[in-house]
Amino acid sequence: MIEPSVFAAHWLGHRHLTRRVIAAFPPDALFTFSPAPPLRPFGEMVWELHGQTAYTLRGLLDGDWGEPTWDTLPGTDRAAVLAAWDGQTARIETGLPGVPAERYGETLTLSWGEMLVFTAVIGSIDNEVHHRGQGMVYLRELGTQPPDFWDRS
Amino acid sequence: MIEPSVFAAHWLGHRHLTRRVIAAFPPDALFTFSPAPPLRPFGEMVWELHGQTAYTLRGLLDGDWGEPTWDTLPGTDRAAVLAAWDGQTARIETGLPGVPAERYGETLTLSWGEMLVFTAVIGSIDNEVHHRGQGMVYLRELGTQPPDFWDRS
Repeated sequence: MIEPSVFAAHWLGHRHLTRRVIAAFPPDALFTFSPAPPLRPFGEMVWELHGQTAYTLRGLLDGDWGEPTWDTLPGTDRAAVLAAWDGQTARIETGLPGVPAERYGETLTLSWGEMLVFTAVIGSIDNEVHHRGQGMVYLRELGTQPPDFWDRS
Repeated sequence: MIEPSVFAAHWLGHRHLTRRVIAAFPPDALFTFSPAPPLRPFGEMVWELHGQTAYTLRGLLDGDWGEPTWDTLPGTDRAAVLAAWDGQTARIETGLPGVPAERYGETLTLSWGEMLVFTAVIGSIDNEVHHRGQGMVYLRELGTQPPDFWDRS
């Protein structure tokens, strides 16, 4: 239906926008502000996205879809979170275009059931878009104008 | 990379979840509640999604990518919005699986520039996921537990 390079560019566009949303947060609010607990602070959501994406990339690029491992949060410092985000984005940038198109049509058996590789990968992207939308509401409530949704540069 | 039928099922899963989020709103809050203006009430976001999706479907299914036309909001009654949503979902359900895979790789010239058909379609879905995430924050602030993000049935 599409080329893996198109899909890679699509994902990277989302990564860039999410980075701008993280960078727009007042540093002291990233891991503390929630407008309505049990909604989590945006920093915790970002770390979930990082963990889910790490698992997806390990499966897609290394073929290891075993149990996920979860990296320890490098700290609640915004710069540390951005550095981890950038490292993962670089891995998408170098790894994704070389994934053969056929791989997305393979069926996986994960501990929570069977799914297509495509479904696992788009699920990571969707979760990013979902939580980023939530983070943009937080920004408005913090008095900060969010980055433009349509800008993926 | 994937079959159109897989892509159709992916989109429909999102439609079903978004429907549940609309239905979870207290009827009097759907078009009135905003936690931080100029953020719009969720009902207005939903109507934007309906309009963007109508344009995307007209292009994808009828080949007409000319200027969008915007349907008039049927009213601020939650039932009317849900009925419009369901009608559009039915069009996705019947029309999408028959779209040839090659069509997603065609390049469009829209009034705001060139893009792949895939990019236009996934852009509609992303916008739905984005605004639905915002709507889920609104629900929490209204004291209502949102539907589960992972359930696409």
